[in-house]
Amino acid sequence: MNHNNDTICAISTPHGTGGIAIARISGPEAITNVSRIWRGAALNKVNSHSAHLGTILDSHGNPLDQAVATVFRAPRSYTGEETIEISVHGSLWIQRELLASLCAAGCRMAEPGEFTSRAFMNGRLALTEAEAVADMIAASSRAAHRIAINHLRGGFSRRLDSLRDQLLQLASLIELELDFSEEEVEFASRVQLHKLAQELHNELTRLSGSFSTGAAIRQGIPVAIIGATNAGKSSLLNALVGDQRAIVSDIHGTTRDIVEDTAEIGDYLFRFLDTAGLRHTSDTIEQIGIERSRQAARNARIILLVCDATTTPDPDATATAAQNTDAHIILIANKSDLTPNGGCDFNAVADRLGAKIINISTLTGEGISELRDALVSAIDSENTSGSDLLVTNARHAQSLSEAADSISRVISGLDSGLSGDFIAQDIRQTIHALNELSGQITTPDILQNIFTRFCIGK
Amino acid sequence: MNHNNDTICAISTPHGTGGIAIARISGPEAITNVSRIWRGAALNKVNSHSAHLGTILDSHGNPLDQAVATVFRAPRSYTGEETIEISVHGSLWIQRELLASLCAAGCRMAEPGEFTSRAFMNGRLALTEAEAVADMIAASSRAAHRIAINHLRGGFSRRLDSLRDQLLQLASLIELELDFSEEEVEFASRVQLHKLAQELHNELTRLSGSFSTGAAIRQGIPVAIIGATNAGKSSLLNALVGDQRAIVSDIHGTTRDIVEDTAEIGDYLFRFLDTAGLRHTSDTIEQIGIERSRQAARNARIILLVCDATTTPDPDATATAAQNTDAHIILIANKSDLTPNGGCDFNAVADRLGAKIINISTLTGEGISELRDALVSAIDSENTSGSDLLVTNARHAQSLSEAADSISRVISGLDSGLSGDFIAQDIRQTIHALNELSGQITTPDILQNIFTRFCIGK
Repeated sequence: MNHNNDTICAISTPHGTGGIAIARISGPEAITNVSRIWRGAALNKVNSHSAHLGTILDSHGNPLDQAVATVFRAPRSYTGEETIEISVHGSLWIQRELLASLCAAGCRMAEPGEFTSRAFMNGRLALTEAEAVADMIAASSRAAHRIAINHLRGGFSRRLDSLRDQLLQLASLIELELDFSEEEVEFASRVQLHKLAQELHNELTRLSGSFSTGAAIRQGIPVAIIGATNAGKSSLLNALVGDQRAIVSDIHGTTRDIVEDTAEIGDYLFRFLDTAGLRHTSDTIEQIGIERSRQAARNARIILLVCDATTTPDPDATATAAQNTDAHIILIANKSDLTPNGGCDFNAVADRLGAKIINISTLTGEGISELRDALVSAIDSENTSGSDLLVTNARHAQSLSEAADSISRVISGLDSGLSGDFIAQDIRQTIHALNELSGQITTPDILQNIFTRFCIGK
Repeated sequence: MNHNNDTICAISTPHGTGGIAIARISGPEAITNVSRIWRGAALNKVNSHSAHLGTILDSHGNPLDQAVATVFRAPRSYTGEETIEISVHGSLWIQRELLASLCAAGCRMAEPGEFTSRAFMNGRLALTEAEAVADMIAASSRAAHRIAINHLRGGFSRRLDSLRDQLLQLASLIELELDFSEEEVEFASRVQLHKLAQELHNELTRLSGSFSTGAAIRQGIPVAIIGATNAGKSSLLNALVGDQRAIVSDIHGTTRDIVEDTAEIGDYLFRFLDTAGLRHTSDTIEQIGIERSRQAARNARIILLVCDATTTPDPDATATAAQNTDAHIILIANKSDLTPNGGCDFNAVADRLGAKIINISTLTGEGISELRDALVSAIDSENTSGSDLLVTNARHAQSLSEAADSISRVISGLDSGLSGDFIAQDIRQTIHALNELSGQITTPDILQNIFTRFCIGK
């Protein structure tokens, strides 16, 4: 991504065959290059934001396709550069030939995320907004989408900018004191400073603390289904995902013993991990499977502890669930159809685990709807501040946590009456962390890391 | 497709996740409906062919995405109707919500090919041009693409129109004679008529005769690889398709014994069928496989008869190749690396089959390039008239053949001195067949059949 003065091209629509496909061309020579392979209106003379029907030529100068070219003149484009979008018939063959023709006309194939990277470089997007573009494209639930669109619309960067502005105010007053250090003046009221630093610290801690929920919402909330063999775990998984019309995919894990299925329930995407039944065994392979089940339970945000309502709870599964004290545990009394007069009493176990009990029959469908509501409620309860304020990005969480650490040193410095120069240094570190977050300070490594996660053509 | 007055919507870009996705909306209420879920420029007041940045709302009225809406005012659109294209971020989730929102705003989901069907209904495309759109999208080789783009640009329909116009001239003269039938006049010179009819017949026969080559080019040219077991058929297949960078797919046949692979060589897409080795066997399953090999050889356009250069040609494979007298046969003397001083003499067999001999070593790669050239030459030799005049569509071939039959009856009628009314009837039938071809006469069944083969969104 060192060549920001050349003109790049890519197919921006999803890979495959369809009615239409769009090639996007951006850079100083966009109009010149495209004009070389275009028969139709003179693209260098048309208005910005205008669409034109014409013929696009292949690299041998033969007609490739009837096409619509839409011209976006700099700086009024996504990238801030001269940009053309060419809409052609969506055959893979045409898409390939179009790229070949664009390259022959002087364009270079874009790297992943290079359009968005240029938008950032040209000040069209803050870095957190640019990152939100990738999240937006990857979002597969209403909640994940809502977080991304709020970030993209600048909600997150505006909030961070406001935090940083308050810090800058503090910093400038302290720095001013340092200029007059021999006079022992205090321009910055230490009481006011302490109050503001505490407020900032609370906000930064809350934001960085929202990462675990935010990341789970973005990637899909991990739900481990554990229990003794034959408790009905797989039937439960099927009952939960089976009637989903949309966005249900079957991802068979790389581990052969954990089956993963996703389902959108309420506003969230849940990743259900159907684990191997827990039991003592001397079989080495099965032991590995069981260890993986335990690991899934440790990493889960919600644990469904599936019990057979006709027997007592499995002590091994119960112990496994109890080990994850951060997870929401739901005790599923399955096979309720076999116990019309009530099955075993799970209250003692549920109390011990802090778990809710739901009676389920995967045979009749009883309780499934209640379980789905309980899954949504569990995440809603974590997400009380409204999902627009959740952090979903590890880089952001890292910077926020660094900023929180620095500002907490400011607070303790103030508490112990530390001199202004030490306090000023910690404030500067806090501002630095926030500047990194918003992209006001970047390194090539950070940018590389962010934009290579993008798809080509965005 | 009975509701041509409502407003339809579809995602027109390929299915999947990408940088951007486009929804197309067409119909009288396109602008009104989209305006309900749009925050930005007033779309009913903007110029045709103009693009506008704004926000698209979901079906709950919440911001769904930043979007670019391009407005095409009737009749200056693909369909000839009011049309809007909305470009959004290409997540599946956004695409789904956008369609839900458009439907809530009054649009209906488009059926396959409904945009193109409307373009035809509104006189924006001839029927053969509309059909070429589907071919265009499905084209997977330069030759298939070239045929489709020539059809789409009206080359085919213009040629047919010119044929029909000549016929109409003849018809009107004959019909005029019928009005004066008691006077025994001949307005139409029978000599001139005969010459013109013969010319038309030749052209129609040539066009309908080009169908088998045209269809093979469109669908991929079937090449059967036959030979005794262990002659090196599978290695040959790998050598032929192995170094293809682009558009190489592995299609394992529904039959378990024929492996199909495609490769683009020169301008053509070839479909290689690696068949079971031919040998006498009492194994029932293997017999079925061998019968399928023979069938592949019968349907092939090119047969690669693979022989082991160190032994004599397999008589069974040779006999199978000989049965398909329409195919180009290429005798592959494989394992040439084992016979540095020349292997068996295949000249007698090659002469009998009218086959070219190519010495190949799948081990060293010798001869592979020569074979690829030979494959291309074989099809080039069939395609001497230039691929723009090839018929690729079974419906066209059928109508052309009907027209050719009728016009041949005109010729024999003239030869036997048949009266004008009989000749006029045959001319009318010819014109009818040509009108069906161009879509000047259509039935709902024909249209249904054509447009359901399209993808959604085109």
